[in-house]
Amino acid sequence: MNVLIVHAHPEPKSFCAAMCLQATQQLRLQGHQVRVSDLYAMKFNPVAGAEDFGERCNPDYLVYALEQRHGQERGTLAADIRAEIAKLLWCDLLILNFPVFWFSTPAILKGWIDRVLVSGLVYGGKRFYDRGGLAGKRAMLAVTLGGQPHMFGPQGIHGPLEDMLGHLLRGTLAYTGMTVLPPFVAWHVPYVTAQARARILQDYREALLTLDARAPLPFPNLDDYDDRLMPLPQG
Amino acid sequence: MNVLIVHAHPEPKSFCAAMCLQATQQLRLQGHQVRVSDLYAMKFNPVAGAEDFGERCNPDYLVYALEQRHGQERGTLAADIRAEIAKLLWCDLLILNFPVFWFSTPAILKGWIDRVLVSGLVYGGKRFYDRGGLAGKRAMLAVTLGGQPHMFGPQGIHGPLEDMLGHLLRGTLAYTGMTVLPPFVAWHVPYVTAQARARILQDYREALLTLDARAPLPFPNLDDYDDRLMPLPQG
Repeated sequence: MNVLIVHAHPEPKSFCAAMCLQATQQLRLQGHQVRVSDLYAMKFNPVAGAEDFGERCNPDYLVYALEQRHGQERGTLAADIRAEIAKLLWCDLLILNFPVFWFSTPAILKGWIDRVLVSGLVYGGKRFYDRGGLAGKRAMLAVTLGGQPHMFGPQGIHGPLEDMLGHLLRGTLAYTGMTVLPPFVAWHVPYVTAQARARILQDYREALLTLDARAPLPFPNLDDYDDRLMPLPQG
Repeated sequence: MNVLIVHAHPEPKSFCAAMCLQATQQLRLQGHQVRVSDLYAMKFNPVAGAEDFGERCNPDYLVYALEQRHGQERGTLAADIRAEIAKLLWCDLLILNFPVFWFSTPAILKGWIDRVLVSGLVYGGKRFYDRGGLAGKRAMLAVTLGGQPHMFGPQGIHGPLEDMLGHLLRGTLAYTGMTVLPPFVAWHVPYVTAQARARILQDYREALLTLDARAPLPFPNLDDYDDRLMPLPQG
């Protein structure tokens, strides 16, 4: 299996970086190929803009998704985007490894999503959810969090974590066609002991050893909708 | 009323930019003060990192939120962050004006959130939701979207839009203590006629004229939770 880990944390010695390293080592031990895009180390540019296109289908008015489609077809996307797309297409499993900032990714990783998941290749027209361009690949979030489990869930003050992360789990990963595994969540990281951190890393190792046993999250199937994307009668 | 519009679109001639201009003009006509942070025009840096701190409480290990707290207390945050914080504290109403990218903000605006909504000032400890540091202010999303209303909602293929945007509405704006108005949504923008666009701008103008009639979205109240943030028995 080919695994791409996209890692985004501003502190190279962080626990989040340790998780990235743990995954890299463990997956290699299992015989998998692993590549890491360490966005902070790469000084990855997260700003989607006109500079992303070597050639424009409309030089006077930027519709970002249309220029992505054009640039992808013509091979004229910026070099950093092309390099990340190549890794994305190479991988069978994509892991996004990051600290939760405002119930989402750090901006540098949001920019990877904005710029690398290009229209035309990854989605477009009716090619999304189970018909998305990355169908056949798997994806997983591996996140660190300040909060604790009891703050989430139906009774928790923040509601279910999967709902807060819905824009990523459903709106991004599932939207591209990838099979989305349940997130691995390292809870309460800034506040726990070194011993507790070691236990989380051990849990993460076991999660990686038993990836196939992680039942994917359920998401919409386009067969349940008509051509206008209105829901079809059930049953 | 003082209004801060944070605008993030890579095309200055975009419909999204027209919405920003519409709001600026309309609110000024009503006698309000309006400031605009046009993040693309400002070339705003969205990457939260060590460079954000002129002085560190821990130079060897970066915990971003702790350094935010320290920098805010000591006045040593980066100048661009301080400038945005000043606008944020000045405003009574914050409007985030952006095209929806992957069911969230463009990365440049996520970076504004990551870097400007600093720990210590905006939240910290038990200061969040109704006790957040920005309590008393109002906030609203004004967004453009490729999708159509029937793709959202309980039966829609993407589920309710408010759920997909939950990380922003609840996890960001409400979390800071702000009163969150329902989003203004410009649907199907890339595909509609100039006439339809003019009608959306007119709708937006009316929404701005009747802000006080927009019932805020409901979010958690810390009085309903104990000291550990476990829910208290209802009734």
